[in-house]
Amino acid sequence: MTETRDDVDRQAALEPLALQCPVPLPPGETILLGHGSGGRLTHELIRDVLVPALGANPELSRLGDAAVIPLPGGESLAFTIDGFVVQPPFFPDTDIGELAVNGTVNDLAMMGAEPLALSAALILEEGLPIERLRAAVASMASACERAGVALVTGDTKVVERGAADGLYITTSGIGLIPNGVEVGPDRCRPGDRILVTGPVASHGIAVMSRRAGVSFEGDIRSDTASLTGVVRAMLAAGDVHCLRDATRGGLASVLNELAEASDVSMTVTEADIPVLPAVRAACEMLGLDPLYVANEGVAVAIVAAEDADAVLAAARSEAVGAQAALIGGVGEPPMSVRLRSGLGTTRPLMMLSGDQLPRIC
Amino acid sequence: MTETRDDVDRQAALEPLALQCPVPLPPGETILLGHGSGGRLTHELIRDVLVPALGANPELSRLGDAAVIPLPGGESLAFTIDGFVVQPPFFPDTDIGELAVNGTVNDLAMMGAEPLALSAALILEEGLPIERLRAAVASMASACERAGVALVTGDTKVVERGAADGLYITTSGIGLIPNGVEVGPDRCRPGDRILVTGPVASHGIAVMSRRAGVSFEGDIRSDTASLTGVVRAMLAAGDVHCLRDATRGGLASVLNELAEASDVSMTVTEADIPVLPAVRAACEMLGLDPLYVANEGVAVAIVAAEDADAVLAAARSEAVGAQAALIGGVGEPPMSVRLRSGLGTTRPLMMLSGDQLPRIC
Repeated sequence: MTETRDDVDRQAALEPLALQCPVPLPPGETILLGHGSGGRLTHELIRDVLVPALGANPELSRLGDAAVIPLPGGESLAFTIDGFVVQPPFFPDTDIGELAVNGTVNDLAMMGAEPLALSAALILEEGLPIERLRAAVASMASACERAGVALVTGDTKVVERGAADGLYITTSGIGLIPNGVEVGPDRCRPGDRILVTGPVASHGIAVMSRRAGVSFEGDIRSDTASLTGVVRAMLAAGDVHCLRDATRGGLASVLNELAEASDVSMTVTEADIPVLPAVRAACEMLGLDPLYVANEGVAVAIVAAEDADAVLAAARSEAVGAQAALIGGVGEPPMSVRLRSGLGTTRPLMMLSGDQLPRIC
Repeated sequence: MTETRDDVDRQAALEPLALQCPVPLPPGETILLGHGSGGRLTHELIRDVLVPALGANPELSRLGDAAVIPLPGGESLAFTIDGFVVQPPFFPDTDIGELAVNGTVNDLAMMGAEPLALSAALILEEGLPIERLRAAVASMASACERAGVALVTGDTKVVERGAADGLYITTSGIGLIPNGVEVGPDRCRPGDRILVTGPVASHGIAVMSRRAGVSFEGDIRSDTASLTGVVRAMLAAGDVHCLRDATRGGLASVLNELAEASDVSMTVTEADIPVLPAVRAACEMLGLDPLYVANEGVAVAIVAAEDADAVLAAARSEAVGAQAALIGGVGEPPMSVRLRSGLGTTRPLMMLSGDQLPRIC
């Protein structure tokens, strides 16, 4: 019953987008905005189109946040790439440059890696004021400094007016995985505990309010931040099996990805999931479920049960993890994700379908 | 102070209508198509805007085709990124997928590196037929196979209709630099010889003819190819000081970049520079100088004089280098690049200014 209501909500969220496309194209034959949502359509595009076209490739097929490359010296390298097309590109408290650096640093952190170097490719629209480019690049520089990594190489392309929307930034990163660290989306085990490093949904609501020109009570800011420090603290405190940052598709989609990759069930308790009061109020006003709203500085960690308290304490010792919480546990197969409500009932928590808000990052 | 200016910049950037402003902004203050040409404007944008905004960073300031990252094990890693926005994205003989793989593999080769892994970030326009995406990704896969490298991780973003032009692909690559290999744009020395690995201008003319719907006598194809093999052969044959692929801006711009980075003079002989007859005829018809037309599978190598013949023979032993040629030499400072004509006179060969043809790669 509740599930049906969610589906209706999601459909409602898609209405304004559907209106922009007067002649609906047959589903599955063209790219839809939902293919960039980080939810079900993205997942299907990767699984059914991209991975088969690329052929057998065990590292790609793992679909981790970053690939792991063994080096001749015995170390392992994490390697990742991420495109940023956030609209608008500039917010009062952050911009596309900071998001592009933190996003890639976090993909490295999700493999337990310390960032070694970043690269950036800019696609600029003809007519972009150079001061804007300068501002975005200065934000990249300060985000790099905070994350303790250097941007070492780059590329710039320019397209005609109307062939891009201001500026797009793709960042790629490499990081060193310390010996003994082995995390991966397929390593969740029955009995593990589920931890989030901070309150969810802040980034998506910040983008949405900025885009709609809505202002909410309270100060809603993007949560964009480097997660390297909090991951380092958690890995030192106990046995972390799996890390994933809850970006596009939100917490619910990430839990589904992990449950599918590890073939386990998961149950999370709604009341234990941290959401800032102003963000929760905004979600209620907009009819959005905070579990599907994007984050840019929140990770999910799947932790061995006996170490869960120590890992939680370690996360809370870092500023970015001060509001970390244990929100549920991993159970036996078959794969499923369920949400336990305040009344003690549980309902399935599906992957995001469609696109709650395009171009969130 | 800087913070205040940044705040003002971000405020300005938030004006939604500013980008659509019909009043043209003063030149030099907005991004022009020429900033993506690979010529003088690109060079100035990088030197005067991007590098200063990113702050002191010795690796970035070298402006090589790829950055060099020392690893704890003693090896060095080459790391590079490149965005591809070629228009149209599909040609009879190649497409954006193949270009995106070869371009990044070649940037690694220009550091003397063997490719280790690639990543790719796709920016897709809503409405793109999925078959097109499948074709581009299949091309990436076969180009990876030919270059002996795997695509190990990726990212997909979707933007609304009109916010991109079909599909853009950014590839990033890492490669291992064998011990003892040290090449760099600042290593050209007076007395060195200048070698090109193949005939120039084919890629640009292939794109141009495709875009204009012009068809020329003879078969003009893009020269896109992996240069890893020919570089490997040349490095084994003698002392190569410097390698650079002559992409955007063509041979003339690359010679200028190298002469500037090494603070040397260079003289090349027009009659020695290989250009395919059909490409030369097309250039004459279109009024284009082949030395400024883009290539996607041609490198310039700066070689110690005593090894020049051996390196040339090594290049010619590979299919992609079969028409390699020695085209000139390096002289004392000050920095200059000159072209010797058939009559024995010389004239300055400047860096490309403006944009001969936008979105060539």
